[in-house]
Amino acid sequence: MQLGMIGLGRMGANIVRRIVGDGHTAVGYSRNAEQIKEFADELGDSFQGATDYPAFIALLEKPRIVWVMIPAGATGAVIERIAELLEPGDIIIDGGNSRYHEDVKRAKALRPKGLHYLDIGTSGGVWGLERGYCLMVGGEAESVAHIEPLLKSIAPGVAAAERTPGRTGEPSPAEQGYLHCGPAGAGHFVKMVHNGIEYGAMAAYAEGLNILHKANIGKERDDQHSAEETPLDNPEYYQYDIDVPEVTELWRRGSVVASWLLDLTAGALHADPALESFGGRVSDSGEGRWTVDAAIDEGVPAPVLSAALFARFSSRGESLYADKVLSAMRKAFGGHNELPSK
Amino acid sequence: MQLGMIGLGRMGANIVRRIVGDGHTAVGYSRNAEQIKEFADELGDSFQGATDYPAFIALLEKPRIVWVMIPAGATGAVIERIAELLEPGDIIIDGGNSRYHEDVKRAKALRPKGLHYLDIGTSGGVWGLERGYCLMVGGEAESVAHIEPLLKSIAPGVAAAERTPGRTGEPSPAEQGYLHCGPAGAGHFVKMVHNGIEYGAMAAYAEGLNILHKANIGKERDDQHSAEETPLDNPEYYQYDIDVPEVTELWRRGSVVASWLLDLTAGALHADPALESFGGRVSDSGEGRWTVDAAIDEGVPAPVLSAALFARFSSRGESLYADKVLSAMRKAFGGHNELPSK
Amino acid sequence: MQLGMIGLGRMGANIVRRIVGDGHTAVGYSRNAEQIKEFADELGDSFQGATDYPAFIALLEKPRIVWVMIPAGATGAVIERIAELLEPGDIIIDGGNSRYHEDVKRAKALRPKGLHYLDIGTSGGVWGLERGYCLMVGGEAESVAHIEPLLKSIAPGVAAAERTPGRTGEPSPAEQGYLHCGPAGAGHFVKMVHNGIEYGAMAAYAEGLNILHKANIGKERDDQHSAEETPLDNPEYYQYDIDVPEVTELWRRGSVVASWLLDLTAGALHADPALESFGGRVSDSGEGRWTVDAAIDEGVPAPVLSAALFARFSSRGESLYADKVLSAMRKAFGGHNELPSK
Amino acid sequence: MQLGMIGLGRMGANIVRRIVGDGHTAVGYSRNAEQIKEFADELGDSFQGATDYPAFIALLEKPRIVWVMIPAGATGAVIERIAELLEPGDIIIDGGNSRYHEDVKRAKALRPKGLHYLDIGTSGGVWGLERGYCLMVGGEAESVAHIEPLLKSIAPGVAAAERTPGRTGEPSPAEQGYLHCGPAGAGHFVKMVHNGIEYGAMAAYAEGLNILHKANIGKERDDQHSAEETPLDNPEYYQYDIDVPEVTELWRRGSVVASWLLDLTAGALHADPALESFGGRVSDSGEGRWTVDAAIDEGVPAPVLSAALFARFSSRGESLYADKVLSAMRKAFGGHNELPSK
Repeated sequence: MQLGMIGLGRMGANIVRRIVGDGHTAVGYSRNAEQIKEFADELGDSFQGATDYPAFIALLEKPRIVWVMIPAGATGAVIERIAELLEPGDIIIDGGNSRYHEDVKRAKALRPKGLHYLDIGTSGGVWGLERGYCLMVGGEAESVAHIEPLLKSIAPGVAAAERTPGRTGEPSPAEQGYLHCGPAGAGHFVKMVHNGIEYGAMAAYAEGLNILHKANIGKERDDQHSAEETPLDNPEYYQYDIDVPEVTELWRRGSVVASWLLDLTAGALHADPALESFGGRVSDSGEGRWTVDAAIDEGVPAPVLSAALFARFSSRGESLYADKVLSAMRKAFGGHNELPSK
Repeated sequence: MQLGMIGLGRMGANIVRRIVGDGHTAVGYSRNAEQIKEFADELGDSFQGATDYPAFIALLEKPRIVWVMIPAGATGAVIERIAELLEPGDIIIDGGNSRYHEDVKRAKALRPKGLHYLDIGTSGGVWGLERGYCLMVGGEAESVAHIEPLLKSIAPGVAAAERTPGRTGEPSPAEQGYLHCGPAGAGHFVKMVHNGIEYGAMAAYAEGLNILHKANIGKERDDQHSAEETPLDNPEYYQYDIDVPEVTELWRRGSVVASWLLDLTAGALHADPALESFGGRVSDSGEGRWTVDAAIDEGVPAPVLSAALFARFSSRGESLYADKVLSAMRKAFGGHNELPSK
Repeated sequence: MQLGMIGLGRMGANIVRRIVGDGHTAVGYSRNAEQIKEFADELGDSFQGATDYPAFIALLEKPRIVWVMIPAGATGAVIERIAELLEPGDIIIDGGNSRYHEDVKRAKALRPKGLHYLDIGTSGGVWGLERGYCLMVGGEAESVAHIEPLLKSIAPGVAAAERTPGRTGEPSPAEQGYLHCGPAGAGHFVKMVHNGIEYGAMAAYAEGLNILHKANIGKERDDQHSAEETPLDNPEYYQYDIDVPEVTELWRRGSVVASWLLDLTAGALHADPALESFGGRVSDSGEGRWTVDAAIDEGVPAPVLSAALFARFSSRGESLYADKVLSAMRKAFGGHNELPSK
Repeated sequence: MQLGMIGLGRMGANIVRRIVGDGHTAVGYSRNAEQIKEFADELGDSFQGATDYPAFIALLEKPRIVWVMIPAGATGAVIERIAELLEPGDIIIDGGNSRYHEDVKRAKALRPKGLHYLDIGTSGGVWGLERGYCLMVGGEAESVAHIEPLLKSIAPGVAAAERTPGRTGEPSPAEQGYLHCGPAGAGHFVKMVHNGIEYGAMAAYAEGLNILHKANIGKERDDQHSAEETPLDNPEYYQYDIDVPEVTELWRRGSVVASWLLDLTAGALHADPALESFGGRVSDSGEGRWTVDAAIDEGVPAPVLSAALFARFSSRGESLYADKVLSAMRKAFGGHNELPSK
């Protein structure tokens, strides 16, 4: 099968590599002729490239399959442009991190033109080339079925994890690492919640490791103790110098919290045991916010996912005004002075 | 009635002033002879002072009433020392901020000596002289009854608030501003929860005002926007320059969130509209922690009170290691670099 | 001054009563002729009514001032209908609980017709007639200035609270209980955050009182103790039967957490000490959700306000599926059975 | 090497099986003679058993190694009893779920008798026999070194996970699945935090799956919509019938949230897709509580771990009183009726 890819950044490039490696062919679009050339050198006959859209479209077999893999902010305009060049029956895929609201709107806008639209939430990050990508697909069933050979090649495949006890017979798509989740937007919806969970799970580890990291607080001499904090009732219980990097390595085997995130954490802490290469300002990329928004719309509680999100905001200093309000109140009723120093 | 007061700091001194102003007499202990003299000059015949414990005890009428009003860390030793000098039937009061666990232990230790022990959680801060102190009392009913004339003088009195609809007849002690809450420790337990609520309510205002404060975020030019944050979908909805000090003043009249804390906040924001005199590192004094500990022991949820407590920890930079762990994970799976700069 | 009021429910009716009581006149619209008649009987010459829009409009002096005070869901359609009948220079006010996004859109839509639009967040609930309404106003300054005589009559007035120390001279509008917060939507934005704070403060009290309520948990015999819970390490610290209604009354005087919400809570607990008339399913009316949405858009942390919101969702059983997932996990790794019984 | 095991429940029995399978011998204590016999039949010459402590002790080679693997509540008394029978140089291990405070006290109490004490937090649940147990060890280095052959046999071994990139040479103990974490209590401390993280990660999945589960809320007809909830602004975005069991299967391959907990969740949802065999009342076993207590003592924020803990309390109805307080407030200021029905 042939795939057209717009965007040959890390994700797009590696998806192309996976399908070509599995016997498919690809057409790539990039404004950068040099990049196209390098790619052609690497992939040989299985790859053709173009630096303008009409040429790119002309290289595609009908019905064309165009996967757009560029930053979410630019995706809308590119899809509009491409849609003008495509013909009824062609398929446009947004594999980036668009908010699923956009998918609902785009699918509706493209339908009168006879164009099919799929949204594919794609997880795997920098490891996808090696591990395969977990694919969450939204759109019409016919189009999903049409591109299934490509999905199989991009996804990790059933061997990537031990089979779930009780599952038998032909592995389901989910077991192979891709799933048609529902109509337009369903793929990005599931990907959004996936990332929301990721925020929560990451914060669970981070908070726990912080507790281990401070387990020696009872060793501080009292006169060194900050006046800002209540003195410890029981310093004898906080005399531990825990080797946090080794603990994360330990938990990888046999524990309930073993996970891929933990594998990565153990690797990061092995490479930089004191985390000196990080500043502690944590970004967020939208999906965590949208997940909490969705929880609120649905009226379901998400205290853990929202706490994880807000901790990132706080890490960037965004609670400063609120904190000053607290200090102002404390001074007003109790005469406490919490002066500028931050 | 006569009250012995150990500790003539702001709280102890103002309690003495209130009872003397209401016709009682007081004996004060302080190591500072100058302070005693000033106090005697101010209060005249109604006040006697001493700079050592035996002299202090000798000035008290039996059964002696000794109110200890010193920092929680020092209270235990002073009570032990005083208890050696007192006689069966005397009453010791801890009016400070001890953890209620201490009260349970102290009452038990003093009982065999025939000494009575009361714990009195005292709210009112720097405003108590004028407004009266809200008194939460724990201990045996007989001792509470004995000192009731003093409690009435120290408390705000029924006129301090409009009478609750439906209440008739002689005002209850609670309506006068003091309450026997239960056996030893009950006073500090109720005071502890009071402060826990205070943390939560303060945080509610602080978070809300922060949201008002940032309501102009849509005015930022996109290219100035931090790469750390998801761009706003809808900048047109965040174009407000809210005058936060005026809003706090506004809400004092007729709104659902009118409160004494809001009165103080409005005052603080009037005096320092940009909160320039505060650094945003917020201390905590123990009760908030103990309240969450109690919730956990009881198995009742306290998500708001604990979030308020943790926000104070975060304001002091205590999430830094956790935040670095998050950055390390993000780099490991997504290649994101969040470098030192904090 | 004359005010036209669409919607003579509790809020609309009481606003009319306040302005008429202060010397203004009012024209009311209601489909219910009986209601109009009763109102005319009550208010005499100062009130005229109509049961259809053209008649209502005809009774108004130019420039007309039309205050729409109906459920948020119906407001949009009514404003559209009314706008067709009004003339350039007339003023439409939405005094209900619309999301502020609507105000931004409506003001923009009405501007080409020469109509002025104000959004007025109105706090005061069932007590507004007596206490006055706290008014948060958004829109163009000219229109706000034009209706200021009405705002003064509806608001509580400066005497409703003690003056903030440091404020002198002519009381500012905020001190009188109304405030022009900014352009279209600013009134409802400030009202939204007000309600968000209300959620947080309410939850702070509710959690604290729950901790007091369960302070006797140490009295349970161990064999009665639920297998679901960890046994208490220290039952001796949970032997208190706290009189929660009296505690809420107590805190009204002299304490840091004194507030109007506490006044109401003390009243409610006096009337129904065991809260038997309540089921514990707590509704939410939108503003709490929107406040958290705004915090997320702005990137500022709101852990307390969101925890308060999610606690309401949970009170309605909306965490059930999540809880079952937890039980399923616990069974899978630990063999724990948490069977249907809820 | 020879191990004495007190407690032949699932965990104790499987630990014995693992060491015997790896060439060690075991002595078991159980009051149940039948159980001893069955075990002897299963394990042959490598196992001896006793039904009273003196006989059990007599079968052990010096220095004796006694592993106590019984419910935390009973551990203290058994260790005291055994300590009377042991001799200087012998080693007592608590492999259960004691709070680490107990370890600090016990090690101190046993030291004068010349007895060595180790606390070993043991993770692995019902899967440990097959996967091996993750072992977190606290105590003196000499004793840990002495029993290392047993730890190696009980732990999963280095092959249980892919080696962390950058690690070379002889696998460290952590890589083999056991770690000496520090002095007495350090093992249970690390295990406690492990379980705290487990609570947080579990809640992250549970909340996320709940959001997927309710993604069809926009299909409800408006007139069926609960009056308790704000109507959805945008029902078109909540039209998804997500197959949650398939999604959990999907995420096992290639996604960032792949984990052993997710593996188990996928298995549980495959076996019971609607989770009908669970009631939604979620127990907690102490470690989650102690983790939050430790965070509070250390002054580090743990908003996610505490939210996860409190959600379990709420699942058991423990917020009911708080919820009624909210309803009472809402009625008092807004006239809202939230009647008994829960």
